[in-house]
Order: sequence, then structure tokens, then C-alpha cells
Amino acid sequence: MTPPSPPLNLAQQLVRDHLVEGDLSPGNEIALRIDQALLQDVLGTLVMLELEAMGLDRVKTQPSVQYIDHGLVQADQLNAETYLFLKSACERFGIWYSGPGNGISHPVHMEHFGVPGQSIVGCDSHTTAAGSLGMLAIGAGGIEVAMAMAGEPLYLSMPEIWGIRLEGRLPDWVSAKDAVLELLRRHGVAGGKNTIIEYHGPGLADLSAMDRHVMANMGTEMGATATVFPSDEETRRFLAVRGREAEWQALAAEPGCTYDREETLDLSRLEPLIALPSSPDKVVPVREVAGEPLHQAYIGSSGNPGYRDFAVVAEMLRGRRVADGVSLDINPSSRQVLTTLIDEGHLADLVACGARLHQTGCNGCIGMGQAPAAGLNSLRTVPRNFPGRSGTREDSVFLCSPETAAASALAGVISDPRSLDMAYPRIAEPARMVINRDLFTAPLPPAEARLKPLQKTDNTPALPTLTPLPDTLEVPVLLVTGDNISTDDIMPAGQRVMPYWSSVYASAPFTFEAVDPDYAARAEATRTRSGHAIVGGHNYGQGSSRENAALVPRYLGLQVVLARSFARIHWQNLICFGALPLTFLDDADAARLTQDDRIVIRDLHAQLAAGPALVAEIVGKGELRLHHGLTRRQRTLLAAGGVINHLKVRPANKRSG
Amino acid sequence: MTPPSPPLNLAQQLVRDHLVEGDLSPGNEIALRIDQALLQDVLGTLVMLELEAMGLDRVKTQPSVQYIDHGLVQADQLNAETYLFLKSACERFGIWYSGPGNGISHPVHMEHFGVPGQSIVGCDSHTTAAGSLGMLAIGAGGIEVAMAMAGEPLYLSMPEIWGIRLEGRLPDWVSAKDAVLELLRRHGVAGGKNTIIEYHGPGLADLSAMDRHVMANMGTEMGATATVFPSDEETRRFLAVRGREAEWQALAAEPGCTYDREETLDLSRLEPLIALPSSPDKVVPVREVAGEPLHQAYIGSSGNPGYRDFAVVAEMLRGRRVADGVSLDINPSSRQVLTTLIDEGHLADLVACGARLHQTGCNGCIGMGQAPAAGLNSLRTVPRNFPGRSGTREDSVFLCSPETAAASALAGVISDPRSLDMAYPRIAEPARMVINRDLFTAPLPPAEARLKPLQKTDNTPALPTLTPLPDTLEVPVLLVTGDNISTDDIMPAGQRVMPYWSSVYASAPFTFEAVDPDYAARAEATRTRSGHAIVGGHNYGQGSSRENAALVPRYLGLQVVLARSFARIHWQNLICFGALPLTFLDDADAARLTQDDRIVIRDLHAQLAAGPALVAEIVGKGELRLHHGLTRRQRTLLAAGGVINHLKVRPANKRSG
Repeated sequence: MTPPSPPLNLAQQLVRDHLVEGDLSPGNEIALRIDQALLQDVLGTLVMLELEAMGLDRVKTQPSVQYIDHGLVQADQLNAETYLFLKSACERFGIWYSGPGNGISHPVHMEHFGVPGQSIVGCDSHTTAAGSLGMLAIGAGGIEVAMAMAGEPLYLSMPEIWGIRLEGRLPDWVSAKDAVLELLRRHGVAGGKNTIIEYHGPGLADLSAMDRHVMANMGTEMGATATVFPSDEETRRFLAVRGREAEWQALAAEPGCTYDREETLDLSRLEPLIALPSSPDKVVPVREVAGEPLHQAYIGSSGNPGYRDFAVVAEMLRGRRVADGVSLDINPSSRQVLTTLIDEGHLADLVACGARLHQTGCNGCIGMGQAPAAGLNSLRTVPRNFPGRSGTREDSVFLCSPETAAASALAGVISDPRSLDMAYPRIAEPARMVINRDLFTAPLPPAEARLKPLQKTDNTPALPTLTPLPDTLEVPVLLVTGDNISTDDIMPAGQRVMPYWSSVYASAPFTFEAVDPDYAARAEATRTRSGHAIVGGHNYGQGSSRENAALVPRYLGLQVVLARSFARIHWQNLICFGALPLTFLDDADAARLTQDDRIVIRDLHAQLAAGPALVAEIVGKGELRLHHGLTRRQRTLLAAGGVINHLKVRPANKRSG
Repeated sequence: MTPPSPPLNLAQQLVRDHLVEGDLSPGNEIALRIDQALLQDVLGTLVMLELEAMGLDRVKTQPSVQYIDHGLVQADQLNAETYLFLKSACERFGIWYSGPGNGISHPVHMEHFGVPGQSIVGCDSHTTAAGSLGMLAIGAGGIEVAMAMAGEPLYLSMPEIWGIRLEGRLPDWVSAKDAVLELLRRHGVAGGKNTIIEYHGPGLADLSAMDRHVMANMGTEMGATATVFPSDEETRRFLAVRGREAEWQALAAEPGCTYDREETLDLSRLEPLIALPSSPDKVVPVREVAGEPLHQAYIGSSGNPGYRDFAVVAEMLRGRRVADGVSLDINPSSRQVLTTLIDEGHLADLVACGARLHQTGCNGCIGMGQAPAAGLNSLRTVPRNFPGRSGTREDSVFLCSPETAAASALAGVISDPRSLDMAYPRIAEPARMVINRDLFTAPLPPAEARLKPLQKTDNTPALPTLTPLPDTLEVPVLLVTGDNISTDDIMPAGQRVMPYWSSVYASAPFTFEAVDPDYAARAEATRTRSGHAIVGGHNYGQGSSRENAALVPRYLGLQVVLARSFARIHWQNLICFGALPLTFLDDADAARLTQDDRIVIRDLHAQLAAGPALVAEIVGKGELRLHHGLTRRQRTLLAAGGVINHLKVRPANKRSG
């Protein structure tokens, strides 16, 4: 494939270099070759079971790395047994295993495995952070990651490229978090939808690789598909400090290139910002809420994972004491960062000032411990503050920089760090960081791997076998929902449910729990019979990309969802698991359907192939006109009963022994 | 009171110096003046509510210290709100507050507040560890701690004094844990019942103050009421290193004294020992189980809390790597220990070798995280390995020294540390430890304290008002149990239930959950009516001292327990909350009683006062002859409806404003 003649921005170059199908026109379906894969534990279990179900012998993405960073609170045996299962799956399939204690997937992957110019897909929405090194880094549903690991391309709609030109230099007490909060303030949580954000311009010189990680991480909060930074001298320094300079290459937009959208951000005009409860885009200057009481200050997560982000806090707190009554929670992002904080003397300062040092990992960022008191203010350097995500239903979580969190912890009230009577501590990385891959478990050689069994328990059963979509669908409507049903509504999260996500069967009783507690039982009754339909409103399946929100209802007999509109990833997930997503040709038709109606669609495959329109019947109520947006590839998946069945029949992926 | 003429051992001297009532004859009731009080969080909440219910203005024990060390997994808002409640109660009542992150109550109290010769009572069974400094240190039910804080003496039966003469010097690779495991091997978990263990002899010279802590801590596992060590030059050194030499005094047995029981332990003949699952007395030499596979090695807890216990592990692991697949969990016991490990370079070694560093506190020792996989071997330096205490029902937990745990983590199988090819690292404490009380919240001055409200939520409601025992009891039998019902059977623990222990009302539905899930509902129906009786077997109320196992059933209407025999602390707790514990004069009578029988006892108070025998009637089945062992003081408590009512009417404890 030859490049188009006009100069390309960096995002276009990265797409071009991985393009298997399609072209660079925004909105068209493209297929991308994927170099690397990243898994975390609570979403990685199903991916491993999918690889098993596909009959895969060995993953194609190199490296593929499984991180244990989410489910670190071992309240009973389930999490420890999940680690053992994942480790055995890594041994079986040729995947690196990073056990509990090594740290959060995103910064650890960046430090150990990130390579400018490569593509990576991960089953965690913040996989985008690897764009900080000039990677094309995309978060996706687990089944799409499994497909990539099996050597299949990643399919998506070519995004628009959103060029953001950085100018100026960050003032004292203002850091990368403030820069991305400013973009959230301007554009909101949907402002980056269907775009790749590409940062460029002279302001880059002031941003370290880890600063860029902060901004690429939170591109996800704007809904962006990816964020891309150039690979420049700072990128080279970052890799060189970690003994990996050989993996560096220069990457930048071609001179004269253009962007689909353009924006300028003058770093020198920023001030400390804060996102109010409970959305990342409710951003105001810190000074507007200064003086509000503080209950908790939280440092860490993939939203501020760098050595600097902790060291600046330590410098601010050295020889002082956290305000009485404030919990200052330090969550090292990686073993690497913890080691460096010890070596440079910062950890001693943090412990001496009264901070609580927690285990390395995601921790409270995803509600695994550290839940605050209801209604009291918690300032966090994490990327998200959706209601209840902290573990406390009535929480009051703000997002801010480490500087703002530390200044507030010292004062006992929310404080603009510029109000502190001290020089701003600018932190440089040490000249050398020890990158010790001995603390990972490397993939086994193929001959040895092939003999390894998966270490399963009752909580990691094999996936159910899904049936192909029949040619005549005759199903009852089991549930009629309102608009904006989220994947959280479909499959609940939290410490109570997440340890069971590894089992479709154990997750099933929780399905739609808060929407209709009887759905799961009614659905189970249709499972081995006719199956059933769900009728949704607008934006059905919004929110988190968790694939079990499609897989588990499908297991319970879901054959078809009729909705006014779908959220993109959930729509894709339904197709991947062989459930048919249809929209109403006339929105008014939705109101004709009630629970227990029966829907019949005849000659289904012929209708799907014939064009975007379908005709169905509501038994006793007459005809229903529907619409689908399926490509030929997607129709093939549905006819096979989903991706796994589809890949299983392809000889290349058959086990050799 | 003048001392008796024969020379006294140290335990007798300590009792004598605190004696308010009674004498030193074993088996007689004595009353002890209590100097200090210790609270932990999951049992401290009820104590604070008891102080409130008593109308106490300010605690008399100095210092009284509330530690947050158990409920550190903040899965929702409850634990954070418990901290706030406890802190406000500390401010109100004149109590020191040690927040989450400062560490485990027992070693922290020893380092900051332990004073040779003083008495201390704590609502945690391992309060005994303070005996390492020559304190008279006793664990008790919360209500007894509350009474002590209100200035009341602690009542108990004068124990026998068990002199254990230490000889010789510990061989390389053998440490204090092995010494106390040897005693558990010899005498079992009930071998120290109704005794105070007093260590003496030349072998003491080889044991640091923290080694003695290990042994005094696990005296509880032998059922001992307390463990006492002399206060000698090592005690002076321990205090001097912490800037508290002025609080030292020499304390030792008087020459020529005798003991009620005598024992000799030759330290030089010990070898590495290990307690097999699932009891602390199933002790064998490590070499007998060497080679068994290892899943987890756990360093920390009040069972091995000293700087040395971590430093020796760090020295053993320096430059090596934890075996692949083993989780080595490091749980710093205190901020102090964490700081020293950083300063001396040991923390860096631990992190580099692949250990997981956890937050400071009790953590997995009481099942708060770190639960192992079912059936796989976990080696722990903690004091207890009862089944399921780790959080995993089918666990396989061994108890051992840090040396054995570390050697096993290196090898990946259970290993005798003497098999390592290296010199034994003998660790000396640094010459100076920073003891920073700034990180505690000190008691407020009385005038300020009086104005402080308790910061309550729905989960910290005031205690119920209990009614006096009536003169005619006519109650249905609601539950008939077998032998050995434990307080765990009565009031379940674990992360699911413990956050609710602060509320009698929220705890109530869990009562007897595993024994009879309908008991709580049936009892609730009797609560505001007749009340009810429970019929128990032998050893009713064994195990943990948790007072809610008496208070919550009492709230639900429990008036009387008829049992074949009672465990001591639960018997005391029933009386303290105004429930009458009676035994059968003829054990065969127990079999006559079935659920829903009605029992009538007439002229109750006159019968109790007249002597140990009572007559009751089983309606329709005839007479029942019963027995009580209540002192006049205890009858007064019952007549008042428990300790709180009793103290409330005493003018000295009335609030002044």
C-alpha cells in the first residue's frame, strides 16, 4: 500500500503502517495489524477462556502481557485462584505474566515493553496511555483483544485526527494533569469521540514521557479512540534511562500535514484545575473551591503514575505533617517507581509525614479498597470520578494533579498549590532506572508451553458454546428498557461481583440486577429453548467496554436486541458473541412492544444479506420494520454464532497436538 | 495490703501492686487497678458506645489509646466512617487516636507507651504482648475494658503462676517464634489456661524485647491470661533507643520465689518448628514437612512485628529472587518499622527480590485481604491458623518463624532455613529509633473535649437500653445447641460482617447465622415481649472474646442461657450485659429440653441470693434444678440490667455538663 500523496500527520502514518484493509478516510471501516497485546486481570480471565475456546495454540502478538493489578484485595480464595489461572494460561499460550506487586499495566508496560511505532490493543480502556511513546494504542473489548492475539486484525471505523498544538511552558505548580483537565473543561467527556488526538508543537519540549502518559491516559475520558505523541529526544531519553535506547526511533508528523480538527493549548496560561464530583469534565480552577474541607487525598493510579508524580508530593511534604484527620493515600504505580522512591529518599519522607503507603497497583482507583466516607471530599489523581466508582455510593471525588492533592493534604482543605510558601520542586528522573524483567514470568518455549494445562477452578469454567443465529427467529420480549442503559446496568462491577466475572455461569445471576432482578431467572428459562429478545431505548450499552455485558445475556438466550440506537463498543460486542443488534426503522415502533410480546423474523440470513432493511412480525400486533448496519464480515460472524465459532473452524488456529 | 511473707515471683508482685480486692491465692476472685487501656477498631466501636451509654465524661486510664489496624480494607464507606467515629470519640473522652497507617496496636503501644510495672487491659486477645516489657497485660471483653477506662477495677480469678526457666542460647536460624511454638507443641492450645506465664532464667539474655513480644503475644494461643517478662537491661536498652529510658525500672522475681507450675526450656536444643494446619499447637520440626509445595509466605502481624523479623528476611533475600509462583507478602507492623527498614536499606532489598509490600497493619492475619488459594500452603508468621481465618474457607495455613518463611519463599517449597548456604544474619536494632507521637492525635484538654460531639452515622447508633432481670422469668426456649458453640458461631466475623459490628441492630440479623438462620427472626419477635432462653451444651461461648456474642443476643431478648458448661470470658460477658448464665445441676436434664419449651423461674433474685442452687419449671414437664456461680457483685450487675445500667446510676461517672 502506498501512502497518499499529501504529507501525513503522525496518527495517519501509524494507521497506514498497520493497515490491512481500508484507507485513511474517516468513517470507513479499517482493519489494523496489531503488534502487542495487554491484559489486566478482571477482564483478562475471559480473554484467556476465549483463546482456549478458539483452540489457539500460541499468541501472535509480541509481546502479549498479562498484568495483575485490579483484583488485589484477596477477601477470599477467588482472586488468588484467578492469578494462578492467568499464570497457567500465560504459560500455555506464550504470554508474559506480571504478577501482583509489579504494578499497574499501563506504566509498567510503557517502561518495559513500549516501542515507538508499534500498535497495541488492550482489554482496558486506558491502554491508550502507550500513545505517550508514539505507539498506536487502543482499548477494546476482550474478544477483540483475543482476536488480535490470534493474529486477526482489529476492525474499527477510521477516526478523525484531532491535532492539538501545544505552546508555551507549564508555570510552576501546574503539571500535565492540569493540561488534560483543561481539554476536558473545553470539550467534555464526549468531545474526543471517534478521534485520535495527536499532540504536536513546541510545548512538547516541556513534557516528559510520563507527563505525556498522563495526557494519553485521560484522552479516554474525552472518548478518544487513541492519543498519539511524537517519539522525540525525550522519548529516546526515557528509553535510554531504562536501558532500551535501541528500541527508539524518531516519529513525527510530516511537515505540512493537516488535521481533521485543530486546537491550540498554551501551557503557559494554565493554572491548577480540578474536576468536581462526579464527572471528569466538571473542571474549574482549584481556587474556586479552595477552602472546602478535605477527607482524603489520593496519589497514584494510571492517571499520574510517574516517579515525578510521587516525588513532587514527597518534596512538598518533607519535614511537614499531613493535616490531622486527612488520609493521604500513596499508591505506588509500579515496583520500579517504589524502588526509585526508596533509593532517592522520597519514600522515607512520605512515611514520616503521616501518609499511608499502600500496595502497588490500581487499588482505590477502581474501588478496590480506600473507599472514602460518604459525602466527604476525596481529591484523587486518578482518571475517573464517576459516582460510586470509589466504592462509596454517595462519594464526593475530585480529580486533580499531585501538587493540588498534596497542598490540600497539608492544609486540610482544598488548596491551590500556588498558595504554598515554598519553591516549586521540579523533579528530574534519575539517570538510570533498573528495569528488571526477572520479576516477570517470560513465555515458555512452544514445545514446553503446549504441554501446560490451564489451572482452572469452578470459577474459571470453559466458555459456553454459542449456537449460530437461526434462519427463523421466534422469541419472546423479556425486557423493555429506557434510554442510556449502560454496561454497568447490564453487568454490575464492584468487589461483590467482579471476582465472579471469570465465570459466565457465576456472573449470570447478576445480569440486569438493578434494572430488573427477575430478568436473569426469566432468561435462564429461555436459554435452551427459543431464546429471547430485549428491547432497548437510545444509546443502549453505553459506558465501559466490558464484554460480559454482551456474552452473559447471550449465554442466557439473548438472540436479538431491538433498540433505538446502540453505543458503538457494545454493538460490536453483541455481534462478536452472535447476538443480533437491530434498530427501528421508525422510532415510534419501539413503543408498540411490551414485555412478553413475541417477535418473529423469517428468512433472516437472506434478509440481512439483501440490504439494511428487515421485516419482522409482532405476533398478534402486525408487522415491524427494522434496520441493521452489518458488514459482510459481521454477517459471517453472526452466521457462525460469533467470533469464537468463526475462528475455531479456521485451520490456522487449530491446535497441533 | 501488706505482701505475704515468702518471696514473690514477678507476676505476683505485679498483681500485688495493682490489687484492689482479693489476695494472691489462685482461683479466688481478685480486682485489679488498671493503668492503661488499648483499643483496636473492630472491637473498639462498641467500647466507645459503652462509654457513651455510661455517661462517662473522661477516661481514667492513662494513656488510653485507640488504634486503627484491623479494618483497613475500605470496600465501601463503612470503615472510613468508623475511623471518623472513633477519632471523635477519642476527642470526646480523652483518648489517644492512632489512625490507619500507624500500625498494629501491640507493637506500636509497646514502642510508644509501654511502661514496665504498669497494668494494661485491651479489647484484643493479644494485648498480652505488652508483658514483654514487664507489664501486667490482659485481653478482655470490650465492656470490661470500658469499665477499666471508667476507673473500675478488672475482676478475674487469680491465675496460677507458671514459671518457665529459659536456658541456653538460640542456635543459628532458630528464633523466638520457634521457642513459643515448642511450648505449644508441649502443652497445646489449652495448656496455659488460668495461668500467668512468667519467663525467667539465663536464657533471657539471648532474647531482645521484641523477641519477648513474640512469645508474650502467643501466650494467648496457650490460653494463658497473661505472660510476664522481667524488666532488665535489654528492656532499658529498648526504651533508651526510643528516647524513653526515663520510663524504665528494673523488675524481677524475688530470689527464692516459687511458682505454681514449673518448666524448663533449653533454647540451645531448639530447631526450626512449624505449626501445621489448622491449629497453633500442631507443631512439628520444619524438616518433617520440608519439600511440600509453597503458595504464599507471609511476614508480619503482632506475631512477629519487630524490625528484626523483617530485616532478617531482607538479608536472606538480598540479591536473590522469590521463587516463581510464590507470593511473598510483606506486612510492615508499624510506621516505625517501615521507616527503619527504609533507612537501613532493607526495604529496597525486599522490593527488588519480588516481594509484595502491603500497607502497615494487621491485614491478612485477620482475613482482611491476602487470602490464599484453597488448599495451597501458606506459611505465616502470624499467631493463629484456625480454619478459614485467612479468609479462605478451605485454607492450608502454617505458622513459622520469619527465617522459615523466607527460606521457603526462596526455594518455592517448605524449607528448613538451616539448609540455606549462607551465614545466619543476626540483626541488631539501630542505636536510635525515631518515636514520633506527632502522628498520633493526642487527647484534648477536658474543657475542649467536653464540647466534642461523637461523629455518628447509621452504623454507629447508641446502644440499646437493657432491662433489669425480672423477678419472674417465663421464657420460651428458642434454640438448643450442641457442645463447643463458639463466639464465631454466635456472631460471625469476616469482611462481610465485621464492618457492621459497630451497630448492635445491623449485626443482629447475622446472629447464629450458620447454626440456625431463623434464630434472629424468632428472637426479634421475643425482644419487646417475654424474651427467650437458649439451651447450650458443654463449653458454650468458647473462642474469641468478642462481646457482641453476648450483647446482640441479649438485645434480641436473650434472658437466660442454660448450658452444661460455659467458656470463661463469654460467661463474664453475658453477666456484664444482664443475661443470666446457668448450668444444669444434673447434666441429664439438658436432654429434657427442646425448642419451644417454656421455662419459668420464680423468685429469681431471692433464689440467686440464697445460694448456688435454683429451681425452675419446664411448663408441662416438671421441675428443673439449676446452678449458678455468681458473686454478689455479679448479682448486682444482673439486677441492674448489666454493667452499663449499673455504672450509669453512680454519680462519679455522671457528665458534668
